[in-house]
Amino acid sequence: MSKPYVLGIDIGGTNTVFGIVDARGVVLASNSIKTAKHHNINDYIDELYNEVMKLLEANDAVGKIHGIGIGAPNANYFTGVIEDGVNLPWPTPIPLAQLVSDKFGIPVAITNDANAAAIGEMTYGAARGLKDFIMITLGTGVGSGIVINGQLVYGHDGFAGELGHTIVKRNNGRLCGCGRAGCLEAYCSATGVARTAREFLEVRANEPSLLRNIPIEAITSKDVYDAAIAGDKLAKDIFEYTGQILGEAFADFTVFSSPEAIILFGGLAKSGELLLKPLRNAMEKNMMPIFKGKVKILLSELKEADAAVLGASALGWEAKPMVTIVPPAPATPAAPTV
Amino acid sequence: MSKPYVLGIDIGGTNTVFGIVDARGVVLASNSIKTAKHHNINDYIDELYNEVMKLLEANDAVGKIHGIGIGAPNANYFTGVIEDGVNLPWPTPIPLAQLVSDKFGIPVAITNDANAAAIGEMTYGAARGLKDFIMITLGTGVGSGIVINGQLVYGHDGFAGELGHTIVKRNNGRLCGCGRAGCLEAYCSATGVARTAREFLEVRANEPSLLRNIPIEAITSKDVYDAAIAGDKLAKDIFEYTGQILGEAFADFTVFSSPEAIILFGGLAKSGELLLKPLRNAMEKNMMPIFKGKVKILLSELKEADAAVLGASALGWEAKPMVTIVPPAPATPAAPTV
Repeated sequence: MSKPYVLGIDIGGTNTVFGIVDARGVVLASNSIKTAKHHNINDYIDELYNEVMKLLEANDAVGKIHGIGIGAPNANYFTGVIEDGVNLPWPTPIPLAQLVSDKFGIPVAITNDANAAAIGEMTYGAARGLKDFIMITLGTGVGSGIVINGQLVYGHDGFAGELGHTIVKRNNGRLCGCGRAGCLEAYCSATGVARTAREFLEVRANEPSLLRNIPIEAITSKDVYDAAIAGDKLAKDIFEYTGQILGEAFADFTVFSSPEAIILFGGLAKSGELLLKPLRNAMEKNMMPIFKGKVKILLSELKEADAAVLGASALGWEAKPMVTIVPPAPATPAAPTV
Repeated sequence: MSKPYVLGIDIGGTNTVFGIVDARGVVLASNSIKTAKHHNINDYIDELYNEVMKLLEANDAVGKIHGIGIGAPNANYFTGVIEDGVNLPWPTPIPLAQLVSDKFGIPVAITNDANAAAIGEMTYGAARGLKDFIMITLGTGVGSGIVINGQLVYGHDGFAGELGHTIVKRNNGRLCGCGRAGCLEAYCSATGVARTAREFLEVRANEPSLLRNIPIEAITSKDVYDAAIAGDKLAKDIFEYTGQILGEAFADFTVFSSPEAIILFGGLAKSGELLLKPLRNAMEKNMMPIFKGKVKILLSELKEADAAVLGASALGWEAKPMVTIVPPAPATPAAPTV
């Protein structure tokens, strides 16, 4: 193969991580830059280009990149654009695929971070061989990537798979970052778990808990995990509550696409049986009879440090040259082909 | 084309309707038999065969049937089997595709009735040209057929698309025929509307209503419609309530597959703005901002009398010869090829 590698780029609010990946899913080398350092998107792309070029040169990969795959919040696979409403330091919409493709002279495909994780899991992880599964990322928010009949679901507008914004509490639900109330994400993300901790500590004011040793506004999901592992009843109840809401939601997801598995990824997924036991119980208890006992709950098999880059990189294999919408300005020399 | 027609068969609890359909979706001729007349499935298949043969002969269609498509409750596209838990007069599971294929000597494909409706709508109706839509059938129950990227969603086990069994009331919900409580179907089917009428009449005992002229257990959704059209406040509120629950559910369906349209079919869908106005309002009010104003609510364009047969028949074009699992008994002569 003349171009045996792909480049995976994961753009988060804090860091942009990128890596060179081969066809078997081995990350040959990776590095990162700070996402928020540049207020001008072109300066950011320039720095990204320079740092990627250094990595390619150091790994004898110049001219060997088949395509670039990028995972980024609100990134639209169809249009190549990062749409409105994301926590990035640049004005939106951002024509990211076009900008990166123009700079690098390599085909680029983009999608949102959860979809990238699903593609990574299908290509290299726990979903190899599965044609119907749902990837749920339990991080700061709750993201999802849905695969049906072997294809990622993008929907009519490229934004399908926002399962973190299913309404799980119809009345008096918690406010969500999306502007509505009662979303799954407001309960079952890492921040949702911390919110539950604050609620439980207030409502059960007379109950002792290890969590009372921490300033209430500073409590994180990791603190809740540590307390639960140490046997703290209130902390264990927080995981019960979180797992139950997830399980109820998963039973509803099942009537939609009847997946073979739902795969969990992200920090909270590492809570093990603390979360999985109530989740499975609630899912089966709420499952429509025809689907009972059919849906596996699996954990991601990708190393978290590599997962985002791997997932994004898998998109690089299918990236196609962009159709340039505006003619290039004649004064600007084309970027050299990598 | 040597075999220019398909045969569509719709098996309902009461009637089995079948028709000869051409490639443009014209129903050349149709007829029906009573589903429940025979307690032995083989007797039923024999009568169906005899009646279909008469119809084919009368329409010069013998030997011109490309394939048979069947819509039936709990019919599994992958296995060709009608699975457990349906209101049909024969013991389940029923290897329907095999039985019909053996009898007629023609390839057979089966799916459930709502999926058949979605395929019919995509092939001949309001969904022509749409790649991402959801078909919702509002009849005795609430059925659904989901199309993503131009393909019907069957899921891992062939049973995907049971959106009528999404839980819309998590606590103290109405009992549903599926054995759980709080399903969409228990509220927004024709029978759900009648249940709402009985609840409203009891809770608002002092409020006059035209519906009080009807014995409470005999009230149907048609009675509620007639009363609402006559200006009855309580009847109009029943449609408000039904439309709101549907709209809230549709907003949740949208975060899953981001459809271009949700298409309504069945008796209740004919209620017009009585249902559609509160439905649209609730859907948009509950919609995640990124999807606001994007999802069309459409009404089926298929004639109800033809729709089930048309939808089933569309499957006939893609029916493939069955792999016979058990070798045919040598004493039984093969059925003549139609």
